Amino acid sequence: MNSFELISLSRLKTYSKLLQKKYRQTDGKFLVEGIHLVEEALKSDWEVEAIVVSDHGLVKEIGKLESWDVRQDIELLECSEREFNKLTDTVTSQGIVAVVKIKYNTLEGFWEKLPERSIIVALDDVADPGNIGTILRTCDWFGVDGVVLSENSVELYNSKVIRSTMGAIFHLPVFIDVDLRSTIQDARKAGFNVITTVLDGGKPLNKFSFPERSIIVFGNETHGISKEIEQMADASITIPKYGKAESLNVAISCGIILNAASTYQI
Amino acid sequence: MNSFELISLSRLKTYSKLLQKKYRQTDGKFLVEGIHLVEEALKSDWEVEAIVVSDHGLVKEIGKLESWDVRQDIELLECSEREFNKLTDTVTSQGIVAVVKIKYNTLEGFWEKLPERSIIVALDDVADPGNIGTILRTCDWFGVDGVVLSENSVELYNSKVIRSTMGAIFHLPVFIDVDLRSTIQDARKAGFNVITTVLDGGKPLNKFSFPERSIIVFGNETHGISKEIEQMADASITIPKYGKAESLNVAISCGIILNAASTYQI
Repeated sequence: MNSFELISLSRLKTYSKLLQKKYRQTDGKFLVEGIHLVEEALKSDWEVEAIVVSDHGLVKEIGKLESWDVRQDIELLECSEREFNKLTDTVTSQGIVAVVKIKYNTLEGFWEKLPERSIIVALDDVADPGNIGTILRTCDWFGVDGVVLSENSVELYNSKVIRSTMGAIFHLPVFIDVDLRSTIQDARKAGFNVITTVLDGGKPLNKFSFPERSIIVFGNETHGISKEIEQMADASITIPKYGKAESLNVAISCGIILNAASTYQI
Repeated sequence: MNSFELISLSRLKTYSKLLQKKYRQTDGKFLVEGIHLVEEALKSDWEVEAIVVSDHGLVKEIGKLESWDVRQDIELLECSEREFNKLTDTVTSQGIVAVVKIKYNTLEGFWEKLPERSIIVALDDVADPGNIGTILRTCDWFGVDGVVLSENSVELYNSKVIRSTMGAIFHLPVFIDVDLRSTIQDARKAGFNVITTVLDGGKPLNKFSFPERSIIVFGNETHGISKEIEQMADASITIPKYGKAESLNVAISCGIILNAASTYQI
């Protein structure tokens, strides 16, 4: 394993800017924080440029790091706790971040490679970072074949999204800035049924049999699915309600529906 | 409807302290923020002491307020935007908070009054405010009969919990600071089966028939359900996994299991 070098001020400055969306976009890199997430990044096929650790009180973590299989071309950098705080927006940090290069997945040729039975999740302007992250984590649990995010969804590389994914981002094919309308048309050509979820009036989930190939759409927290997309639906489903709440959180709906689609799929 | 009076400095100070747990506990009050939540509080049987609005740019909201049925004994107070910021920890505020008195629900006599078919949710040290709030909202959707929170769960009146409940706190019987062990013993005496959820090795959810009376336990985000409680389980269930994620978010698990318990209940 390579040895750690002290981080230069200019490098610290460049990396700390990655906490802002505009620099992630111009530099094509993002920050991944915490032992578990850094480990997932290293095990994945994503390109890790550097690992930065805080020198303060992190003996255990550094010990852990030494047991990892870190490729030779990954820079290992060390800094003071004060410097490290510029690389994180969490309060209780584990003192480790990785700088990872953004992968720009393309949907070209994607549909053809999918297995006969597959589930795609499409997010229509989901806005809350925690929701997107939790949805990805849930998709990862249920082995969803891919997730597409519409252009106005919250940015995937936002640190809160990354944290909430718990590493799912490194396991799943995720496509961002997608024109949902044309993507859904492509999916249909590939034999996918478009399933939307509505608060009421849809087919009750427990009476619905999921087709072999489904693209399941979830909408914005406030406005739901856009009309344009709703009109493309082959089926609309509703999670039966027995109480008084006006709505379910979108990530909760996603979990309930994916469980049904996976477990009760015909 | 009463008319608005300017808030006094001392009152502003007293109320702003309710953003802190220790003052909520000594004063027995908490803050509820935003139009929807304040409306839910007013419609409920919880005691609202005062409503405070910001005078700045909130004409629409105040218009909305005038359509509400506000009891004569609720004080209506107005303050500047700057003063209002002392009453909120959100960035994008709607300029309205209510001061609500904490209800101390007791489990004495609770079990006897429950219907033959009922579901109770028990949270064993769930620590994240967003998770607790989302779980309560989900319980409210599925018409759960009551929620019990163990002593080390995150505080119910935390503003993030309240926000994430989307009003569920005003619909559901919620019991806090509960000794989970003795409560589960009481539930059993009342004919409840204790169901725990485990990441793997439990009975697959889709093969499980929920008994008429279930108390379903969810554990801490990191440590899961405590051993002591796990040993009291009549059944352990697992949500089938098809992908790579190491775990599911606890609120997602709760949603999936409540949907199954409600919809597929025999």
